[in-house]
Amino acid sequence: MAMSRRDARSARLATARARNLRRRAREAERASNAPAVSPLAPEQGFPDMPVIAGLELAAVAAGVRYKGRADVMLARLAPGSVVAGVTTRSSTRSAPVLDCEAKLSQIADTSAGAAIVVNSGNSNAFTGGRGLESVAAITNAVAETLGVPETRVFSSSTGVIGEPLPHERITAALNTLAATLTPGNWPAAAAAIMTTDTFPKGAGASVALSTGPVQIAGFAKGSGMIAPDMGTMLVYIFTDAAIDQAQLQAMVGRLCDRSFNCITVDSDTSTSDTLLVGATGQAGSAIIAGTPDADIFEAALGAVMTDLAQQVVRDGEGATKLLEVRVTGAETEDDARKAALAIANSPLVKTAVAGEDPNWGRVVMAVGKSGAKADRDQLSIWFGDILVAEKGWVAESYTEEAGASYMRNAELVLTADLGLGDGQSTVWTCDLTHGYITINADYRS
Amino acid sequence: MAMSRRDARSARLATARARNLRRRAREAERASNAPAVSPLAPEQGFPDMPVIAGLELAAVAAGVRYKGRADVMLARLAPGSVVAGVTTRSSTRSAPVLDCEAKLSQIADTSAGAAIVVNSGNSNAFTGGRGLESVAAITNAVAETLGVPETRVFSSSTGVIGEPLPHERITAALNTLAATLTPGNWPAAAAAIMTTDTFPKGAGASVALSTGPVQIAGFAKGSGMIAPDMGTMLVYIFTDAAIDQAQLQAMVGRLCDRSFNCITVDSDTSTSDTLLVGATGQAGSAIIAGTPDADIFEAALGAVMTDLAQQVVRDGEGATKLLEVRVTGAETEDDARKAALAIANSPLVKTAVAGEDPNWGRVVMAVGKSGAKADRDQLSIWFGDILVAEKGWVAESYTEEAGASYMRNAELVLTADLGLGDGQSTVWTCDLTHGYITINADYRS
Repeated sequence: MAMSRRDARSARLATARARNLRRRAREAERASNAPAVSPLAPEQGFPDMPVIAGLELAAVAAGVRYKGRADVMLARLAPGSVVAGVTTRSSTRSAPVLDCEAKLSQIADTSAGAAIVVNSGNSNAFTGGRGLESVAAITNAVAETLGVPETRVFSSSTGVIGEPLPHERITAALNTLAATLTPGNWPAAAAAIMTTDTFPKGAGASVALSTGPVQIAGFAKGSGMIAPDMGTMLVYIFTDAAIDQAQLQAMVGRLCDRSFNCITVDSDTSTSDTLLVGATGQAGSAIIAGTPDADIFEAALGAVMTDLAQQVVRDGEGATKLLEVRVTGAETEDDARKAALAIANSPLVKTAVAGEDPNWGRVVMAVGKSGAKADRDQLSIWFGDILVAEKGWVAESYTEEAGASYMRNAELVLTADLGLGDGQSTVWTCDLTHGYITINADYRS
Repeated sequence: MAMSRRDARSARLATARARNLRRRAREAERASNAPAVSPLAPEQGFPDMPVIAGLELAAVAAGVRYKGRADVMLARLAPGSVVAGVTTRSSTRSAPVLDCEAKLSQIADTSAGAAIVVNSGNSNAFTGGRGLESVAAITNAVAETLGVPETRVFSSSTGVIGEPLPHERITAALNTLAATLTPGNWPAAAAAIMTTDTFPKGAGASVALSTGPVQIAGFAKGSGMIAPDMGTMLVYIFTDAAIDQAQLQAMVGRLCDRSFNCITVDSDTSTSDTLLVGATGQAGSAIIAGTPDADIFEAALGAVMTDLAQQVVRDGEGATKLLEVRVTGAETEDDARKAALAIANSPLVKTAVAGEDPNWGRVVMAVGKSGAKADRDQLSIWFGDILVAEKGWVAESYTEEAGASYMRNAELVLTADLGLGDGQSTVWTCDLTHGYITINADYRS
């Protein structure tokens, strides 16, 4: 064919050009040194958070991998504390996750208290049999140092995968950690568990129950659902409320589905995601399921979890925009969730947001592929309060200028109404930018 | 808190920096003018393809949207031809797709032949009631011009969505198209249906059946599973084989699951994807299901479909690497497919490939999140022939240098053996690069 030789030459030229382009993009990004802090970080910085009676925190630089920064966090919970939690459903989950799961599934003897130990720098994931040995070494040492049973010591690890965890560096630091345990030491604890996070993430709440005030506070790490180091979202929340372990576990499970399970950065899932909630029981009397107190407490705990979840998205790799996706009018809640996640995970929707492009067609596409029941001619879409499309076509009142102007905001709300029923769901995500590619294509190389 | 004011300032600076970075990246990409042809385009260019007895093709510049290039393709199939096909499962599929579906589901009277008409530039998707009116106007006009029943005229549209299709420009061009119908006019037909494709895609085969030789040839478009214009993969394959419509339909369905349903660029799904296979029946005697002839024909048709599917991936937006993902040892074939697609769709795997980073940990992560049954300690991973990980940890023989060196190839094979059973699946994808972001974040804006 006449075109074949010319095509081959074009292809060779294009290859060289693509290689150059890639190199130039890397250099540009390196020269600029990437943002020190995500542009979506909360303006007020790390919040003031209440002290939780019965909880002490400490952090230390143990040199697991990083130099010159704290990388191990220890939390001691007083006798009587219960711990609930949710971990990743990944079938390749890490050794510490497996250990936490086993411990969370037991109704525990709480008489000697509990502890949580977390290191950054090494995730102890995909480390074969040695992984569980490291977990045992760490949890045993913490148990001995603090005088709590080993079954009440929970651990997490986050950082590079596939490298054996130098757990002796962590156990060597335990005496220092135990000696510096302090109530309300939130900023240090939150900073010690960071990996590629660009800011520490904390949230707290105080609520008045009928038996007196109760405090809730916690911190999280995660730069995207998954960061270059295999990501890992870790969340630790504490309260002085008195609440039964099984009741707390049920509550945390429900709330997780409406907070941490409603965020996505790139649809990838860490092998180490862990959420632990500890209740020391030192404030007021027991919260009884089904009472107004239980509802008030659950709402406050949910607000803290949602706040932390959104902060994780705000630190999404390369993120420049926060996107809230609301799906309403689905036949079922499950369908609404499917459609919302399909929109939030769609690379085409996320690149349109990055490009400040009011490309509602990509939203239609994402709803269409989601598996949720949808009827093109019943579908309506809003950007913020702007009706963009209705009943299968662009809205008469819509102008491209209005859409484009709205897309320039740093925080966006996108609503899709399927027009079929009462099912609704809200999820949060960020945009997909050159920054994401730079961070993830150049890591380790 | 001491850090809050500093953080706020850093955040403001970072916002400005991120904005600058984004602008700079856009400018760099525009200056470089993006590769004219994908670096992964077949070196030999558009292939020589056999003439199919009973098939004529024509293309014309109708000015649907583009200027100075052909944008409408017409295919006439002789009396006796059957047509089979597969269309997108999107619940928001376009008007032409709905029309094709209705026509494909009938066992047709083939005595007057058939026709396929395709335009690029406008996808007639999400155009409300007007969408079906345009389809009817076009298929009616083709039926009248060529003297075939309207129920035997199939149409596709690809291009921007949400804008009414100026179908009168297409119908006005039909006389010219009809007058220029020519056997074997493949290059013109393949070029007329392109949108953001960087090269035309064709593949053909000749097979010797017991009753004589049979020809197969076809062409496709699609720049990614989904391109900025809502993408659309369109595929038209023709053969002079004599084969029953129901038998051809079953065969095409089976083969589609192993070819076009095994490719992914960004996990997004077009609202217009359409594959049509027309058989004119002018070569040899009827192919009987279950005979060696049927097997030979199916294998050849499958090879043409796989070739075209891979060419679509080779033209993936921003692609610089072709990645074949093989999953073996899964408990079921379905599990193997789930794991393979999870790996191929993972933004972290795809950015690692772009960065030539042998990051096997991301493969572990993707297997873990796939939903396929997996046991971390049974999992083995190869890059090409290099054993990277086995039984839950990095392989003793593996060196980072060997992995990094392999990743510099433009075409890569990644194998994950789950060690559980006999299920296997192979899918193809490309890397995720700055080019993808540039193409999709800047479109329309």
